[in-house]
Amino acid sequence: MYDGLTNYGKTDFLSQLQNKKTLFLCAIATTATSRIPGITGAGATPELTEYTPAADVELIVHGKPLCLPEIPQTIIKGEAAPTPAVITKAALELSDIPIIVADAGARIKPDIPYIKLGNKPGEDVRTGKAVVNAKEIFEKGVMLGKTLSKLTNHLVIGESTPAGTTTALGVLTALGYDAKEKVSGSMPENPHHLKYDVIQEGLKAAGYEEGEIVEDALRAVEIVGDPMIASVAGMVMGSTVPVTLAGGTQMTAVCSVIKGMENKFDFSNLCIATTIFVAEDESADINHITHQIDDIPIFAVDPEFEKSSVPGLKSYLDGSVKEGVGAGGAMMAAMLQEVPIDNIRFKIEELCNKIF
Amino acid sequence: MYDGLTNYGKTDFLSQLQNKKTLFLCAIATTATSRIPGITGAGATPELTEYTPAADVELIVHGKPLCLPEIPQTIIKGEAAPTPAVITKAALELSDIPIIVADAGARIKPDIPYIKLGNKPGEDVRTGKAVVNAKEIFEKGVMLGKTLSKLTNHLVIGESTPAGTTTALGVLTALGYDAKEKVSGSMPENPHHLKYDVIQEGLKAAGYEEGEIVEDALRAVEIVGDPMIASVAGMVMGSTVPVTLAGGTQMTAVCSVIKGMENKFDFSNLCIATTIFVAEDESADINHITHQIDDIPIFAVDPEFEKSSVPGLKSYLDGSVKEGVGAGGAMMAAMLQEVPIDNIRFKIEELCNKIF
Repeated sequence: MYDGLTNYGKTDFLSQLQNKKTLFLCAIATTATSRIPGITGAGATPELTEYTPAADVELIVHGKPLCLPEIPQTIIKGEAAPTPAVITKAALELSDIPIIVADAGARIKPDIPYIKLGNKPGEDVRTGKAVVNAKEIFEKGVMLGKTLSKLTNHLVIGESTPAGTTTALGVLTALGYDAKEKVSGSMPENPHHLKYDVIQEGLKAAGYEEGEIVEDALRAVEIVGDPMIASVAGMVMGSTVPVTLAGGTQMTAVCSVIKGMENKFDFSNLCIATTIFVAEDESADINHITHQIDDIPIFAVDPEFEKSSVPGLKSYLDGSVKEGVGAGGAMMAAMLQEVPIDNIRFKIEELCNKIF
Repeated sequence: MYDGLTNYGKTDFLSQLQNKKTLFLCAIATTATSRIPGITGAGATPELTEYTPAADVELIVHGKPLCLPEIPQTIIKGEAAPTPAVITKAALELSDIPIIVADAGARIKPDIPYIKLGNKPGEDVRTGKAVVNAKEIFEKGVMLGKTLSKLTNHLVIGESTPAGTTTALGVLTALGYDAKEKVSGSMPENPHHLKYDVIQEGLKAAGYEEGEIVEDALRAVEIVGDPMIASVAGMVMGSTVPVTLAGGTQMTAVCSVIKGMENKFDFSNLCIATTIFVAEDESADINHITHQIDDIPIFAVDPEFEKSSVPGLKSYLDGSVKEGVGAGGAMMAAMLQEVPIDNIRFKIEELCNKIF
């Protein structure tokens, strides 16, 4: 259908969205979970992971982070992989799609106008009390989804939540889905055992035995989730226009919460869009997780970084970085506005040369 | 042109806006100025005035205030005048116009999703340091105006800022406009002398002699303004679509700041819309102030409360309450979506009977 776009599932979903007015919303959140050493690559040190969401959206809006002196990059084998925020920025600028940032609970706030949804960051999942205000964040998300869908015809929702695949694994596991060793990660070596151990510790701390299913979807977020999941689930349920969840396996956790809500949800207006780096991640399986939830189409965009002359971008090819800040969905949204994938890659290279 | 709408100035401004996609933005702020006894009617006690903006927008979104046990009403001669937020709510609901709230610096935060622009409430104008972060709020306003104008074809901006006519008088005076005894007020007896005295005290505290003009427009806000004025001036300057400033003489202060900025602004895409209660306020003169600034059309909506059976609404007829929360502009925006003024009044009555 489009050069550089692979789809898994329903093929006709995108035709309704071509050249439609689109809004990109980026939900940001942090949790104390991201401070667990070795759990995430989204930050140079465990402490700095809490700056990543703010720095990412500042980079998109201002062209540089303001909360940090340095640009968020993942350093792997001495090579700096630029944050996927650069991909998102390139795609949104070429397609003139506006971005709105929603703070579901980020400890460091970005220096831009943003929508306030949550009052506090998430806790460490090992406490079993990861998001005490999940219900409130969800309800604010519903209100925001309602409002934003009056302003656009297609809502693309990305996220920046360090250690978000761990909390995604937590929610999926708590709700009874087989996600063990199936969630993606921000590093070449996916620390599946560490992720599994910390979410098991959280479930036990909250009084659940291994394998026992948490009946209430928002309760799963409260125990072992993150604020982003609650907010985005709310936005999707509040929206009256088609929604693209722009992200990898974290967005499957959002879908699992929606599926578990009392009000039955019609998934026919929802898709997941991610990068080819997540879709082809051999250490994870987004299709396997998604198919357990509902018939949700997944689209994967390939920016063809093997053609790039920027060394940092090649780090994406070996799995050093895969997705984030809605990079895949932002590229797909731009392609729906008739921006060719080659132009997006050229723009990414231009931004990389300018910023880094 | 429309039943119930009077206009002063250019008559062709509205034709371009008929049936256009419209977004209502409400900027909220508080200042320590509103705690000066006798300066505002927007709150049952000086302390409670700081709850009014949050309570107003909660009333519009939730149907009742959550931050306060009571509905904001002005009690005059034993009769409760319902907050103009009820008018705004009625108009927006009938026309299905979405509302977004922007916090320019309100001490009490509303329990709804809102856009965060400012970090702190304004100080007492008598200090001569009313809004220390005026430039930052202005710049965030510019960014927000740019983003929102990609999502709509007509931006209507209202405000809720207790004692806002005093800070408006401050800014207008500081910038050399003749506004003495010309700003409107929220009470039947307009405390012009008190307003004038406190802003003179502020100007002196900042080192300005009476009559001396502050050269820098944002400096005027810093000295004797409020956070709302800085934020809305920014939004107007950032917008690429027509803007209706929904408010009374406070919005003339916004215009005076825009006029005073270095980048020359084209006022042809801007109008002020207010209620007939402000336009016909004999204790004030919105036309006199506006004409000194630029050729800005003013529209005044008459909800014909003399036809109403709800006693509280009659308080508007004797000037107990006149305008607020963008009531006049919200009614005009609804009329532009072909909602007759009689229907708006019926809906206001219905809401009054349900809420109060």
